[in-house]
Amino acid sequence: MTVAPSPVSTAPSLAPIFKIANPQLAEAGRHQLRLAENEMPGLMALRAEFGESKPLTGARIAGSLHMTVQTAVLIETLVALGAQVRWASCNIFSTQDDAAAAIAVGPTGTPEAPAGVPVFAWKGESLEDYWWCTQQIFDWSIEAAAAGETWTGPNMILDDGGDATMLVHKGREFELAGAVPEATASDSHEYRVVLDVLRHSLAESSNRWTEIAAGLAGVTEETTTGVHRLYELASAHELLFPAINVNDSVTKSKFDNKYGIRHSLPDGLNRATDVLIGGKVVFVAGYGDVGKGAAEALRGQGARVIVSEIDPINALQAAMDGFQVARLESVVEQVDIFVSGTGNFNVIRTEHMLKMKHLAIIANVGHFDNEIDMAALEILEGAVRVEIKPQVDEWRLPSGRSILVLSEGRLMNLGNATGHPSFVMSNSFTNQVLAQIELYCYPEKYPVGVYVLPKHLDEKVARLHLDALGVELTVLSPEQSAYIGVPIDGPYKVDQYRY
Amino acid sequence: MTVAPSPVSTAPSLAPIFKIANPQLAEAGRHQLRLAENEMPGLMALRAEFGESKPLTGARIAGSLHMTVQTAVLIETLVALGAQVRWASCNIFSTQDDAAAAIAVGPTGTPEAPAGVPVFAWKGESLEDYWWCTQQIFDWSIEAAAAGETWTGPNMILDDGGDATMLVHKGREFELAGAVPEATASDSHEYRVVLDVLRHSLAESSNRWTEIAAGLAGVTEETTTGVHRLYELASAHELLFPAINVNDSVTKSKFDNKYGIRHSLPDGLNRATDVLIGGKVVFVAGYGDVGKGAAEALRGQGARVIVSEIDPINALQAAMDGFQVARLESVVEQVDIFVSGTGNFNVIRTEHMLKMKHLAIIANVGHFDNEIDMAALEILEGAVRVEIKPQVDEWRLPSGRSILVLSEGRLMNLGNATGHPSFVMSNSFTNQVLAQIELYCYPEKYPVGVYVLPKHLDEKVARLHLDALGVELTVLSPEQSAYIGVPIDGPYKVDQYRY
Amino acid sequence: MTVAPSPVSTAPSLAPIFKIANPQLAEAGRHQLRLAENEMPGLMALRAEFGESKPLTGARIAGSLHMTVQTAVLIETLVALGAQVRWASCNIFSTQDDAAAAIAVGPTGTPEAPAGVPVFAWKGESLEDYWWCTQQIFDWSIEAAAAGETWTGPNMILDDGGDATMLVHKGREFELAGAVPEATASDSHEYRVVLDVLRHSLAESSNRWTEIAAGLAGVTEETTTGVHRLYELASAHELLFPAINVNDSVTKSKFDNKYGIRHSLPDGLNRATDVLIGGKVVFVAGYGDVGKGAAEALRGQGARVIVSEIDPINALQAAMDGFQVARLESVVEQVDIFVSGTGNFNVIRTEHMLKMKHLAIIANVGHFDNEIDMAALEILEGAVRVEIKPQVDEWRLPSGRSILVLSEGRLMNLGNATGHPSFVMSNSFTNQVLAQIELYCYPEKYPVGVYVLPKHLDEKVARLHLDALGVELTVLSPEQSAYIGVPIDGPYKVDQYRY
Amino acid sequence: MTVAPSPVSTAPSLAPIFKIANPQLAEAGRHQLRLAENEMPGLMALRAEFGESKPLTGARIAGSLHMTVQTAVLIETLVALGAQVRWASCNIFSTQDDAAAAIAVGPTGTPEAPAGVPVFAWKGESLEDYWWCTQQIFDWSIEAAAAGETWTGPNMILDDGGDATMLVHKGREFELAGAVPEATASDSHEYRVVLDVLRHSLAESSNRWTEIAAGLAGVTEETTTGVHRLYELASAHELLFPAINVNDSVTKSKFDNKYGIRHSLPDGLNRATDVLIGGKVVFVAGYGDVGKGAAEALRGQGARVIVSEIDPINALQAAMDGFQVARLESVVEQVDIFVSGTGNFNVIRTEHMLKMKHLAIIANVGHFDNEIDMAALEILEGAVRVEIKPQVDEWRLPSGRSILVLSEGRLMNLGNATGHPSFVMSNSFTNQVLAQIELYCYPEKYPVGVYVLPKHLDEKVARLHLDALGVELTVLSPEQSAYIGVPIDGPYKVDQYRY
Repeated sequence: MTVAPSPVSTAPSLAPIFKIANPQLAEAGRHQLRLAENEMPGLMALRAEFGESKPLTGARIAGSLHMTVQTAVLIETLVALGAQVRWASCNIFSTQDDAAAAIAVGPTGTPEAPAGVPVFAWKGESLEDYWWCTQQIFDWSIEAAAAGETWTGPNMILDDGGDATMLVHKGREFELAGAVPEATASDSHEYRVVLDVLRHSLAESSNRWTEIAAGLAGVTEETTTGVHRLYELASAHELLFPAINVNDSVTKSKFDNKYGIRHSLPDGLNRATDVLIGGKVVFVAGYGDVGKGAAEALRGQGARVIVSEIDPINALQAAMDGFQVARLESVVEQVDIFVSGTGNFNVIRTEHMLKMKHLAIIANVGHFDNEIDMAALEILEGAVRVEIKPQVDEWRLPSGRSILVLSEGRLMNLGNATGHPSFVMSNSFTNQVLAQIELYCYPEKYPVGVYVLPKHLDEKVARLHLDALGVELTVLSPEQSAYIGVPIDGPYKVDQYRY
Repeated sequence: MTVAPSPVSTAPSLAPIFKIANPQLAEAGRHQLRLAENEMPGLMALRAEFGESKPLTGARIAGSLHMTVQTAVLIETLVALGAQVRWASCNIFSTQDDAAAAIAVGPTGTPEAPAGVPVFAWKGESLEDYWWCTQQIFDWSIEAAAAGETWTGPNMILDDGGDATMLVHKGREFELAGAVPEATASDSHEYRVVLDVLRHSLAESSNRWTEIAAGLAGVTEETTTGVHRLYELASAHELLFPAINVNDSVTKSKFDNKYGIRHSLPDGLNRATDVLIGGKVVFVAGYGDVGKGAAEALRGQGARVIVSEIDPINALQAAMDGFQVARLESVVEQVDIFVSGTGNFNVIRTEHMLKMKHLAIIANVGHFDNEIDMAALEILEGAVRVEIKPQVDEWRLPSGRSILVLSEGRLMNLGNATGHPSFVMSNSFTNQVLAQIELYCYPEKYPVGVYVLPKHLDEKVARLHLDALGVELTVLSPEQSAYIGVPIDGPYKVDQYRY
Repeated sequence: MTVAPSPVSTAPSLAPIFKIANPQLAEAGRHQLRLAENEMPGLMALRAEFGESKPLTGARIAGSLHMTVQTAVLIETLVALGAQVRWASCNIFSTQDDAAAAIAVGPTGTPEAPAGVPVFAWKGESLEDYWWCTQQIFDWSIEAAAAGETWTGPNMILDDGGDATMLVHKGREFELAGAVPEATASDSHEYRVVLDVLRHSLAESSNRWTEIAAGLAGVTEETTTGVHRLYELASAHELLFPAINVNDSVTKSKFDNKYGIRHSLPDGLNRATDVLIGGKVVFVAGYGDVGKGAAEALRGQGARVIVSEIDPINALQAAMDGFQVARLESVVEQVDIFVSGTGNFNVIRTEHMLKMKHLAIIANVGHFDNEIDMAALEILEGAVRVEIKPQVDEWRLPSGRSILVLSEGRLMNLGNATGHPSFVMSNSFTNQVLAQIELYCYPEKYPVGVYVLPKHLDEKVARLHLDALGVELTVLSPEQSAYIGVPIDGPYKVDQYRY
Repeated sequence: MTVAPSPVSTAPSLAPIFKIANPQLAEAGRHQLRLAENEMPGLMALRAEFGESKPLTGARIAGSLHMTVQTAVLIETLVALGAQVRWASCNIFSTQDDAAAAIAVGPTGTPEAPAGVPVFAWKGESLEDYWWCTQQIFDWSIEAAAAGETWTGPNMILDDGGDATMLVHKGREFELAGAVPEATASDSHEYRVVLDVLRHSLAESSNRWTEIAAGLAGVTEETTTGVHRLYELASAHELLFPAINVNDSVTKSKFDNKYGIRHSLPDGLNRATDVLIGGKVVFVAGYGDVGKGAAEALRGQGARVIVSEIDPINALQAAMDGFQVARLESVVEQVDIFVSGTGNFNVIRTEHMLKMKHLAIIANVGHFDNEIDMAALEILEGAVRVEIKPQVDEWRLPSGRSILVLSEGRLMNLGNATGHPSFVMSNSFTNQVLAQIELYCYPEKYPVGVYVLPKHLDEKVARLHLDALGVELTVLSPEQSAYIGVPIDGPYKVDQYRY
């Protein structure tokens, strides 16, 4: 096994190995898990429904998703359904070390005698750490040895952002080519790290990723970004295994993006800066689901929100919802807090930063790390960074003013807060588990391609979350069902319904 | 020509005939049209764009859509684009008589020398009137005579709710069968009227509707209901001509339903009852776009809103938006105002009415007239109706309490208010005009079937409405466009995007 | 009796006289009254509490307050409590003719045999009509004759805006002076009418108003304006009788102004213009209670609201509530709808009007008729008025654009809608009735001066409105009461508490 | 000098002593102070206005107020205006140790060579610590020695909650009586500590507090609670020195309570529990300013809010704002989060807790620590407390369910979050500084009694906060000023105006 590049490592010879910040945090993490379970009724319902039949028996799931408390409940749900799991985070800052500890130690283990799941994640990984961790979820030699098997790969991926999927695809591509290309000048630092990892891998094995790819029954992908990559692979006929697009379940994209951000954006702003949101002028770039949740949250706190949009339909929605819609250039001098939720790059640039008010705040809740042009800021002449506290940097600019950049321009709801809350993630993750079951148990339904979950499962996810909120669902009478031609138990809407 | 069954008729031998309440209302109507034009920038932009090229030259459009001020601007836009038009309302209560007069008289005419469009509509038609009016839009003998043509049918339908389309389909069906069936016990009064109309038609001509059907290049349909019928016809292979589903343009269904109802529901409640909405408990059946708009409007007036839903996804949305979600049965005694926006039937029934508070209000903003079980109320023993004012009835119930039923259970935003406001309808109707152009000018693109407008036209509709609201649209840089793989000018979203 | 200057007059020799638009509207008005009674639980509770003891027996109340449906319920409550009443409206446009008819005819009368209250009010009075009507409420000769009494004045005033009170004070002042002054150049048209009335009165009687003043036990005043006049009279030691400032009851000013306007402003805009409020830019001048209600209502309809303020505290409140706060001059070109609720004069001036967008709407919901500088508009060179419909005027301006002025710049929630709804007015009017009882029954508590109702009565008004809204009030335990030093039954707050 | 009972102490012989958690936190605290200064424009404006004239020269202010970042900016403002200051916190949990360190070390000092203000406060004091700290702000012997003076007391108090004021009054009372009474069975643990402190003091000196009281020019009090005590003292003629009630400045009570809680309640909930607020049922006890802010914040996050009230006026306001108003008993089983903001005691009791849902959350944002009946919970048979993390306790109840109690029932916005944000506190503290100036510089205006700041100063506080929010204030024209009788520069409202 590769040597771990950094913190506390625990690899007793007979127990599942892991690499986390501190196993002693397991008890604190376990408290959080117990509380989270109460807020994740979808996952708990799946444990109740499938805990005996264990449909995921035999599944070896390589998970790459923020190692948070909520993910811990997901992991233990997958295990309760029969799966084996190895886990890494999909973001260098998003791991909650107590949750990782609880997962590594397990509900019945102790820090001294851990009995949990192999997890490789800690808050504040370097990029080298990160890709080392990602490799660990593909190395199932310990499990294979324990089972007396020879093949040492996973058979499922559960992905967030597509890094795990990308690694397999690139690894196989370079193996087929017989070489890893040299980095070019325009390659990011991160891509260089990936190339190094694969170069090292190719030196060790000429077909490692090819075999892993062949063994995979499929991937379930959490995010817009990852889904986008999957559709690109599929349309280029390069996709190697079937994929379920969890992101576009209604109960994921319309809940996670909108209601999750509504919660975690002000939470992150508060933890990072303690600045009163009320009365402030806030600029929200993008009025998709993320932007809608952001704008609603900030208005709910008494801010005056200005929205920007490239799509005239969403722009018109923003106007009809009572928001000023303007270009960043038109209002940059008036704004106190900048929020970017577009999914595009270079949305907030140094030319804007130089015009901002003193101590204006920049917060990214989109997906791509480069929504804020941090690369340009880092090389801006005369710009000086002063760390106020972790994930909060004051940048003193040649304008004579400072700005506050949260989480180094990365997702601040993860870096400055704790990400989406459990109830939201219960929706997303119940989709994930159902998607894992679909791909693993019914491979005949899913030839290589990208799928969304059938609407009745999407509706099921919602249904599993109603009781916890005291929602009474109305039931169609047989006559009403016949009248509108909709089954009493659903699905209730056509696929293209917009909610 | 058939003899008109009721009010003021005007049919000078040389002018286009019409039948409306009072041509003297034309000046008042023209004032309203002028104001509405300022609120319908999409239609006015189409007049500017296509007023010279006149792409609808040669189109003979049979229009069946609420004869309101906004429809008047639509009609004059169609005419400005070269079309000939005949018009009926699609609802017996929704005609605004001044708008009808303005259209009949025309911008350059006078009540004495009308020079407008043949329109057959007045507020308060009987069902017999209604279907008589609908027949008039299919009789183009005057226009044919003027043009020296022999064929006397329209070549396009612009429909709302599908009555015009249904008449053609049923007419042809019965002509093929050689007979109109007898009404059965379960047939509604209205369907009996339709059967009578077609029986009379069949007696006059054995192929009138068959020929009309053959001459039609297509229909553009405004509503969920009408679209539903079209898809049913298409899937039964009975659809006779291509159809564009205008309803499912984003700029129609997500604007008209949500923002239109948000405006016109409280407007209708106020005009009908003057009851303070603030502090009241309001029940909103259905949390689709209509229900969302209703709930937002009522909360915005300080009401406490309780929502009901059959779909767990929409139910969860309602809960996440902060609304109590309950079955009608659970809360009926507490509610002051009942709003139904489901599109289903028998949602509010006499069993509920008997439990309601004294002077509880019942308002239908769904679509089907039978959302409120008026039929059962009308035969409920001991129930007495007292008209408070037009479209507002007190029903004294055997419970010893009264309830207020608006617009006889029909669409109260039309019956008690003036329907959706101009700006909302400008979005819907700009879609209508673009759809008429598509079907009429590009028949090769649309074999018989049901289509939605391509996304770039949907986005165009939105774009034409931004300036009026002072919206500044952000423009993608070429680099950003390339980065996310979206053209600078759109379309910006995949077809299944939910907005 | 003076000859009435205009419409349908009814003065049968034996019945109480009145002058209204049309007694045949009584049945329609009675329907409205019945519905309103259900929405005015405070007044109905007073009828239940005091209907037997009739504490107002002997009171002769001269009422000057908008003759609406709600006022009709107030009048019949006063009568139920034993009072005799004569009534005029306090605004030339605000009378609802059906309500006036119902009051004049009475619950047991018929248009042919009226048995109601002497009421002198119709929609669309001239100023001469108005002041003639106001005089009628001071002439109780019919009632005196019926009772065999010689003195023919009222003993109480119930006033709105202070016109009735002013007439008495001015009348007495001029009688003492022995002459009515000539009008000066700066006197308004209305004040000239008042001077004429009093000049005529003085010619008839040298001590009419002096005697009336002497006979008055007090006045209860409804509005900010009227209260302001009362405090001025009191501080100048010119107040002639005790006054209760009903306006400053919490259940009046914080309810009527805020929640009443929240309801009736959008209602008036809708009835007047049918313009979609959603997406519009609305300017609200003043962020007192009226402005707060206006801003909340418009935001609730999806408008973007910009507020102006002169008071830094209220300005800061507006900002903290998420509104842009700007001077009219800074934003006039962007605004679609202008709402004035300041209580000051010349807030919206022709210099602003000339910069407004085409068909911008101007709506006054403040109090003074001159909030909009209509006087300057009327003499603006090149400005042309086109009546769109009653109370809605298009003014074509030399800017080449038009604006829409509602209700000629007067209170549009009365002129274009039906004023505050019943439930709000029930709060105000329950205060009025309690204030009448206080002044009439407990004169010893109120030497000449201006008073607000004691807090326990203010709280009582609120209490009488809770059941109708399903509100459950929490009751202090004796221990809790002792702990915070507040009686279990109230009063709960110190006098200066701000709510 | 008394020996400090606990943590890191620093008392170099020549420097001002202090006692805080860790002086090494000074740099981190200084960063926070710099950011806070940008959010506290009122205080910074006072430094600009009075930094040269130094009106507080000679003032020795004994401060007892939460030792937070914001208070640090207040302290340094007082110093900039010439005052000497000694400081303790007014709450055992609310100290932010980095802020205390920054104050102790001073802007020009270092942890090794501190040059700041004597501050005695750390997060997590015992009650014994707390009252020891409070004593330190009254012992000015070091300052007196440095100044060559003999009298060693302060001449001003700046108080929050009245503890400092109470200590002086009780100390003097017992000195006059010659004895400190024995604690009785009903005395709280805290009062017993106070008695011990004063008993010890009396043993050392028979007139210490009597002399301190005599030397005090006055107190400015921050809170409702403290103000309540002051009015009680005044009405019992026991108040020893003049007091300014800062709490009832509009810019304090209507801002701090409402907008501060709106910000810090969800912040505290998030930091404590990470529970999604959206979709939850939240109970808010009390609809005063605190309750209004709480309800608005939670609705803004998508919660369904149920309010309780004892005052019918506030209850009616809650209903008119769209909230269900119910007794706790009626809804306790449905509620997910309980928020208490009443200012009363025993609002949420064990009888309620036993009926709550599993893991229901209890949060106190009122003032009194006993709003939640923690005393009864602590002795409830079968109840077990499990600390989840600091300030978050799970209580396992004999109901078989658990509840989560935040901050041990104390103010959770301080204990679980960081209290009101800087901008809100800038309003409160600008009032404090103006009040200190008034009492210290103009003693002739304030004989012994309790005062609120004159309205023009209240308005000044607001005015100093407008620029930071981009607010443009409208200015009355001379004509408008004359017309409404309000000076152009204010004050704009009568004293009893409710805002």
